Amino acid sequence: MALSLSRRLLAQTARRAVQARITPSIRAPAVAVRWQSTQPVTRDSMTGEFTSKPDIDASRLELVKNTSPKSPPSPQSLVFGHTFTDHMLAIEWTLADGWGVPKIMPYGPFSIQPSSTVLHYCQSVFEGLKAYRDENGKVTLFRPDMNMKRMVRSAQRVALPAFDGAELLKLIKKLVALDAHWIPQVPGYSLYIRPTLIGNMHALGVGPPNKALLFVICSPVGPYYKNGFKPVKLLATTNYVRAVPGGTGSYKLGANYAPCLIPQAEAMAQGYDQNLWLLGPEHHLTEVGTMNLFVALKRDDGSVELVTPPLEDVVLPGVTRDSVLALARDHAAGKLKLNLPSNLVVSERPITMKEVKAAADSGKLLEVFGSGTAAIVCPVKAIGYLGKDIAIPVGEQGMGPITKTVLDEIVKRQLGVVESDWSVTVMEK
Amino acid sequence: MALSLSRRLLAQTARRAVQARITPSIRAPAVAVRWQSTQPVTRDSMTGEFTSKPDIDASRLELVKNTSPKSPPSPQSLVFGHTFTDHMLAIEWTLADGWGVPKIMPYGPFSIQPSSTVLHYCQSVFEGLKAYRDENGKVTLFRPDMNMKRMVRSAQRVALPAFDGAELLKLIKKLVALDAHWIPQVPGYSLYIRPTLIGNMHALGVGPPNKALLFVICSPVGPYYKNGFKPVKLLATTNYVRAVPGGTGSYKLGANYAPCLIPQAEAMAQGYDQNLWLLGPEHHLTEVGTMNLFVALKRDDGSVELVTPPLEDVVLPGVTRDSVLALARDHAAGKLKLNLPSNLVVSERPITMKEVKAAADSGKLLEVFGSGTAAIVCPVKAIGYLGKDIAIPVGEQGMGPITKTVLDEIVKRQLGVVESDWSVTVMEK
Repeated sequence: MALSLSRRLLAQTARRAVQARITPSIRAPAVAVRWQSTQPVTRDSMTGEFTSKPDIDASRLELVKNTSPKSPPSPQSLVFGHTFTDHMLAIEWTLADGWGVPKIMPYGPFSIQPSSTVLHYCQSVFEGLKAYRDENGKVTLFRPDMNMKRMVRSAQRVALPAFDGAELLKLIKKLVALDAHWIPQVPGYSLYIRPTLIGNMHALGVGPPNKALLFVICSPVGPYYKNGFKPVKLLATTNYVRAVPGGTGSYKLGANYAPCLIPQAEAMAQGYDQNLWLLGPEHHLTEVGTMNLFVALKRDDGSVELVTPPLEDVVLPGVTRDSVLALARDHAAGKLKLNLPSNLVVSERPITMKEVKAAADSGKLLEVFGSGTAAIVCPVKAIGYLGKDIAIPVGEQGMGPITKTVLDEIVKRQLGVVESDWSVTVMEK
Repeated sequence: MALSLSRRLLAQTARRAVQARITPSIRAPAVAVRWQSTQPVTRDSMTGEFTSKPDIDASRLELVKNTSPKSPPSPQSLVFGHTFTDHMLAIEWTLADGWGVPKIMPYGPFSIQPSSTVLHYCQSVFEGLKAYRDENGKVTLFRPDMNMKRMVRSAQRVALPAFDGAELLKLIKKLVALDAHWIPQVPGYSLYIRPTLIGNMHALGVGPPNKALLFVICSPVGPYYKNGFKPVKLLATTNYVRAVPGGTGSYKLGANYAPCLIPQAEAMAQGYDQNLWLLGPEHHLTEVGTMNLFVALKRDDGSVELVTPPLEDVVLPGVTRDSVLALARDHAAGKLKLNLPSNLVVSERPITMKEVKAAADSGKLLEVFGSGTAAIVCPVKAIGYLGKDIAIPVGEQGMGPITKTVLDEIVKRQLGVVESDWSVTVMEK
């Protein structure tokens, strides 16, 4: 295949990459620094040239209302990600002119060139977050700043343009407010928000794109567990790898997902629900399906350790993962009093299948759960490993007490039952 | 993120994956076996149901001619992959109805839903091959059967539908014949053909798509080296990884390309042309930029060894790679008499940076070159490794004698100067 690179584009990209210090050491997560300046657009006093390209600017929003709005379907009929609201947000970017005018417009298809780079080289990053509507009609988002920050960081990893996440968040709030009546007013239901940024250069050379498109679509969704909690069985996958040091596992790239479909299908064919992703010859645990992973262990001194694998550049820095860690650490530090073990130790550290199996054999494996935006937590009842199932306690409720507490505490903060700066108001009414 | 999978789709996919025996051992390349049957469409005599979904069928082609054809630009003005011919081929697939009617239509944009899976989860595979036009107007393709086979194998790896490659090739020939006047009749110029297959389900659940689109576009291109041969400098990349065992490096997935843009930009920022991709703690060589890799070494017994890394599931099975190996092996076996060392040994075997460096230090590193469709061969003059450059002989011509012979012999077969079943006729006129 051709490596027909635009030298100018590459040189610019390299300069930005260096500026952004995203040249990583292998074992350290890349630092998220913006490529584009947040300075206002200015002209060079000598040459008249723009010295900074326009960033996303929420005040420039153009709104074209949908004149044929649909009626939201009954909540019970919703299938995840199949139904979309009346409007979407779209912002174009070009290398020459920076970020263009943000537009909220009727949801619908757009035109794409068959040469568009996203179709060939998969320059695609996305986010997933949710809007909740309480009984009084108040609409909130959960820690959206984390999604904005991660999206910029992901974009930089595949040579897509950075942007001012605070401005994008303002626009997302406007979109959500406009379609707030699509959020089912039923407990457990929410509006799933999907910001996506794609490379849209019209040429087949492999290189940083000179055009990009950011769009945000919204889909009303039901609770992950419609019929009560159902703990899952994982297959510890030893013949496929999701991510490695030096790879892209810690970025929310579309490119991380397609390779996981066949492993997932094979796990299901063997009677498991999802893959447990391992790393290296010692079979370190990393992620579960498309979620982060937590393991609770009883230690010899009687304390309880809540372990999650370290991010490095293998594990996605999940917003729910971060929330679980924050809650558990505040409890362990005595800042919060939660229904968790009094002698809790919270660890981000490597953990191997050997350790998990030994803990299970000696009765010290207390709980295992996945964490993610869709399910919040997902209890695990078994891990298939090298031909045998390791059983994990889930209790009568389908999840252990640590998993249950974490779930309850996060939901309370999502719904505003417990006040928290994690909950960000979109509209009061 | 939600793991909202269609159980039915996944079960089907798993069944196919098992049928296709693509459950791989880690170190063995997956066997390419078709999912879809090549049997004609039949109905169950009892239920009347289709028992086999329609495959691609070239005889069903519908042709809509471009009524506003463009004038091909002057060959000298061409930039790789920026100019496209008057027509494109498109074929839709659905889970319910199999492959639809193939259509050749005017080149142009198409409509895509913002929820289309390719934009979010990067279900995308592609191929690159070239059509050549000789002085008499005869148009040929070079080993297109290899591309068809690889495309089906790649599709299966990301749960996209398989198809009858021979039928697709018939359609590609019709497309190329229709736009044959776009192939510049200038030595070194050709028509680059880009078949692409994308997942096009309109839903955000992560799972095998229930819709897909295969399209083929064509771009007239100039020679890789416009101003004579220019050997390249590679940066042996130690902080990024392109592919690992259990990953997707041996499949032509769009998802393999986006993660390489920043490493490429960083290599250029340091004064190198492309990355040399390494694997593992011993720094095994795997690929160069988007090409396969060959190393020629002088051995202690005076013989010359031409080494290329083994495919396993890390290295892309390149058509040019295979051609170089076939020519060199035929020469070594005495079946062909080429201008190569009489005592040539051809090896597909692991090779480390340590071995390359030691060979360079002792004067036994003869040549290094990349191989690929765009450049055919690309001589390497230096490898930057751990802060120092390893110099590689390239001679006065810019490439060593083995590289030059390989290039000449492949070009002769591409242009029909040497008759070969590698050259496949599209049209005689």
